Amino acid sequence: MSDEELPALETFPNQYAGKRDYSIEIRCPEFTSLCPKTGQPDFGVLTFTYTPDELCVELKSLKLYLQAYRTRGIFYEHVTNSILDHFVAACQPKRAKLVGDFSPRGGITTAVTAEYVAER
Amino acid sequence: MSDEELPALETFPNQYAGKRDYSIEIRCPEFTSLCPKTGQPDFGVLTFTYTPDELCVELKSLKLYLQAYRTRGIFYEHVTNSILDHFVAACQPKRAKLVGDFSPRGGITTAVTAEYVAER
Amino acid sequence: MSDEELPALETFPNQYAGKRDYSIEIRCPEFTSLCPKTGQPDFGVLTFTYTPDELCVELKSLKLYLQAYRTRGIFYEHVTNSILDHFVAACQPKRAKLVGDFSPRGGITTAVTAEYVAER
Amino acid sequence: MSDEELPALETFPNQYAGKRDYSIEIRCPEFTSLCPKTGQPDFGVLTFTYTPDELCVELKSLKLYLQAYRTRGIFYEHVTNSILDHFVAACQPKRAKLVGDFSPRGGITTAVTAEYVAER
Amino acid sequence: MSDEELPALETFPNQYAGKRDYSIEIRCPEFTSLCPKTGQPDFGVLTFTYTPDELCVELKSLKLYLQAYRTRGIFYEHVTNSILDHFVAACQPKRAKLVGDFSPRGGITTAVTAEYVAER
Amino acid sequence: MSDEELPALETFPNQYAGKRDYSIEIRCPEFTSLCPKTGQPDFGVLTFTYTPDELCVELKSLKLYLQAYRTRGIFYEHVTNSILDHFVAACQPKRAKLVGDFSPRGGITTAVTAEYVAER
Amino acid sequence: MSDEELPALETFPNQYAGKRDYSIEIRCPEFTSLCPKTGQPDFGVLTFTYTPDELCVELKSLKLYLQAYRTRGIFYEHVTNSILDHFVAACQPKRAKLVGDFSPRGGITTAVTAEYVAER
Amino acid sequence: MSDEELPALETFPNQYAGKRDYSIEIRCPEFTSLCPKTGQPDFGVLTFTYTPDELCVELKSLKLYLQAYRTRGIFYEHVTNSILDHFVAACQPKRAKLVGDFSPRGGITTAVTAEYVAER
Amino acid sequence: MSDEELPALETFPNQYAGKRDYSIEIRCPEFTSLCPKTGQPDFGVLTFTYTPDELCVELKSLKLYLQAYRTRGIFYEHVTNSILDHFVAACQPKRAKLVGDFSPRGGITTAVTAEYVAER
Amino acid sequence: MSDEELPALETFPNQYAGKRDYSIEIRCPEFTSLCPKTGQPDFGVLTFTYTPDELCVELKSLKLYLQAYRTRGIFYEHVTNSILDHFVAACQPKRAKLVGDFSPRGGITTAVTAEYVAER
Repeated sequence: MSDEELPALETFPNQYAGKRDYSIEIRCPEFTSLCPKTGQPDFGVLTFTYTPDELCVELKSLKLYLQAYRTRGIFYEHVTNSILDHFVAACQPKRAKLVGDFSPRGGITTAVTAEYVAER
Repeated sequence: MSDEELPALETFPNQYAGKRDYSIEIRCPEFTSLCPKTGQPDFGVLTFTYTPDELCVELKSLKLYLQAYRTRGIFYEHVTNSILDHFVAACQPKRAKLVGDFSPRGGITTAVTAEYVAER
Repeated sequence: MSDEELPALETFPNQYAGKRDYSIEIRCPEFTSLCPKTGQPDFGVLTFTYTPDELCVELKSLKLYLQAYRTRGIFYEHVTNSILDHFVAACQPKRAKLVGDFSPRGGITTAVTAEYVAER
Repeated sequence: MSDEELPALETFPNQYAGKRDYSIEIRCPEFTSLCPKTGQPDFGVLTFTYTPDELCVELKSLKLYLQAYRTRGIFYEHVTNSILDHFVAACQPKRAKLVGDFSPRGGITTAVTAEYVAER
Repeated sequence: MSDEELPALETFPNQYAGKRDYSIEIRCPEFTSLCPKTGQPDFGVLTFTYTPDELCVELKSLKLYLQAYRTRGIFYEHVTNSILDHFVAACQPKRAKLVGDFSPRGGITTAVTAEYVAER
Repeated sequence: MSDEELPALETFPNQYAGKRDYSIEIRCPEFTSLCPKTGQPDFGVLTFTYTPDELCVELKSLKLYLQAYRTRGIFYEHVTNSILDHFVAACQPKRAKLVGDFSPRGGITTAVTAEYVAER
Repeated sequence: MSDEELPALETFPNQYAGKRDYSIEIRCPEFTSLCPKTGQPDFGVLTFTYTPDELCVELKSLKLYLQAYRTRGIFYEHVTNSILDHFVAACQPKRAKLVGDFSPRGGITTAVTAEYVAER
Repeated sequence: MSDEELPALETFPNQYAGKRDYSIEIRCPEFTSLCPKTGQPDFGVLTFTYTPDELCVELKSLKLYLQAYRTRGIFYEHVTNSILDHFVAACQPKRAKLVGDFSPRGGITTAVTAEYVAER
Repeated sequence: MSDEELPALETFPNQYAGKRDYSIEIRCPEFTSLCPKTGQPDFGVLTFTYTPDELCVELKSLKLYLQAYRTRGIFYEHVTNSILDHFVAACQPKRAKLVGDFSPRGGITTAVTAEYVAER
Repeated sequence: MSDEELPALETFPNQYAGKRDYSIEIRCPEFTSLCPKTGQPDFGVLTFTYTPDELCVELKSLKLYLQAYRTRGIFYEHVTNSILDHFVAACQPKRAKLVGDFSPRGGITTAVTAEYVAER
């Protein structure tokens, strides 16, 4: 499944755009994808923190977008950066951070943190 | 119900105004409003942190003001910014921050943080 | 997918059969299935506690068996009892208990506990 | 509002009726009602634990039933017993327990536990 | 100050008397009295657990009754038993337990547990 | 009772004055005063953090000083600032901070933070 | 130092003797003795739970009694049983339990539990 | 390496044998062995709870005995039962329980509990 | 065993090299080595945090590399710095930090933190 | 006992001196001394954090050095600063911090933090 087949992230207008910068944190503890090597399921907690500009992400579309990873094979490092890219493309936030905190495998736990800041 | 119908936030004089800047944190774990789309109740914890100037907020009026949201339909992003606006209008603090930490819906948890700093 | 299509639970001989009754607890925090009504994913923690008779469950086959629920639509109450039935059929333990602890939906959390005791 | 005006608790058939006794725990942390004396909102966590006979409670109807207390004035002791009565009438379980754990008022916290066992 | 000068514990009728035995737990973390030897303040958490018969204790009167200990000198062992006696005299419960959990003094922490069961 | 009637905060010489700046944190979880409106007791945790100059506060005198508030009616905002004033007057520290963390009233919790820095 | 040289455990009359059996728990987290083999200090938490008969232990004497172990060499198993013997001899309780929970040595933690029940 | 090559568990006389039954809990969080299939290291926490008869286990010999598993390949179920057998043979306790709590592998955690009671 | 005999740390290309700096945290709670003085096993948790440049570390090779310390005698301070050196040589990250958090010995716990920043 | 009679803090060469600055944290939860006024034992947790220059502290000598305070009368503020002085004299670190976190006395808890930075 390519990126084009992922459900679209929908947005709604930020009522406070131009009035006040503020921050939104969204925590998604039910993320699961597949290991591209073994096909085994991976589990993780994704936490988005962003400052909206003109648009806020719509939560239901975010849920459906994340569920599409249930059947996709992708590495921890890639999935965190890739989801941040899609998020930034959809919302065009002033800044955004994504932390992917993945379940232990072979006694080792991995967390990946990627950040985006809009150029002015 | 429009904003005019909300109970007024009352204040009392800050005895240390002009003498010392200090900080007051108020935590309200019993906030509930309605989802404007579905009419279903939402639940959250609101935490105010502010530096008073001439006025402190009176806690009982804050409690009654927040209870009025029990029957109002309003989004997470809007309610946090809107309550901060009312708070600032009533107290005219030197600075104020409001964090709204909302219960999980569809496996996803959201927190909104808005901040105000008085111009000098 | 019917029950016949589920991966088989494999077993190995209990070296202490006939010598000593003892208890094994197996905790599986990465269980996920689908809601049969909405097709939305459900998440839960399954905890098996059993006293083996002649056979112990092989952990890798248990992992693969549970992963097969990733694409199956089934209710909380049904899935807990059904997995216990399969577990008992494969291991024929002296006693077995299964607790399914499922993630909150609509602000409500559910846990189901089913138990089996062999007739003597 | 009288008891007749409460939304009905719906049920579905217990697939394991007659085959196995098992236990279901349902935790509802978003319960809120009104104090009958002062009209002020009360908050609590309700936890049901029951052994179904022929019927299981349907969770969405339980959510809507509990939301109806949002505008009802009722005491802690009464509400816990009354909800248990409605639950038992709807599901006719083999046994059921309800714990109501209420938020502190005047520095004092109250929890009420009521239990039902079917006569045989 | 003698026992006669303590505020009365008030009660209200138990609506479920004769219908169902149930249990009420009341947790009072703001209890403070004086050490009869040194006059220094003591602090503790009192937890009542009782099964009402015809009467339930009214919480506001309980709060005022406990506040009266603020100026009374009394030992840990005595205060726990004495408050249980007053509680039993006022409510005549089927059974009642009181746990007094007191703050550390000289590096040592003390908890006292007293119980009452009505004769039948 | 006026401020003059409060027990004096005693001090002892700081052996490391002029040699090294260091920090002392003192946590007092047994603070209680009265609400000036209702006469009802309030409870809180006071935490002092200070860098001594020539003098350190003597802990037993601090304990007795704080116990004097047991019978005084005073607001949260006032009491925190007022105790910091007395502390600074007695010890003349290089810097001092006082946090008053008060118990919930009406479902709302309040914390007040005041700070002092000596002019050079 | 022999047992005779230990400070005496003092007692005071139990005001509720003959009226009600109740339980007292005393937690002493500052216990330290010496290892009889190496002379190195050992640390532990002692927790007494007892039902008094005619006598209660006086806490200050208990503190001084326990402090005497600061310079005594004694094994974990012995010290727990020996202190329980002294406690029982002094108070003659209806029942008493002592748990000694000792700090890790060589990566291994030890707890010893001894119990006494009076013959009737 | 066969069982004969394991370091001997040493014991010392129980000073309270014949006087009082008491319980000793020993917690060993640094247990590691090898998986007999893959040669990969396994990690676990072993907790012994026993009532000594004539003999107590000497802790240093227990530490050395457990360290010998560092290079041995053995299954979770087997190792727990086998260590309990060696422990019972060495100490001949009145009763003994061993819980082996092993680290997650493939997202699944296992705990094994074995118990021994002496025949009288 | 010299450093040459350690298993090689393998790497894979960082797909986001040159596009975005991001951070990877890897937590290894199953690290064990030997004390070079006594030969006794040491246990610790190693946590790597690094910003990759062209290469990411491959987790399975990291696991095998760390397992090789199971039979090596090395001090806490040395092992943390030495592993960081090997990690930096293999991945050539932009920055890397390693924290070694070791189990208590003689009642004392030690943590070592070493950091690397690439020259530009 | 004067400072001269304290056991010497021993050191070993820092293998990474001149190559890399790194940090060592040492946590000592078993510190006990005597109150100089009352002779009563005090208990605390000492935490050292330092950046070594040419020398690291040897842990066994640190343990013995700290044990010598078991029989010394000294104030909280003094003991923290004094131990830091001895530590700095022995190791000559680039920087060092010592936090002394002492057990509650009279319901009040004290922590003292002292810091040293080498002049360049």
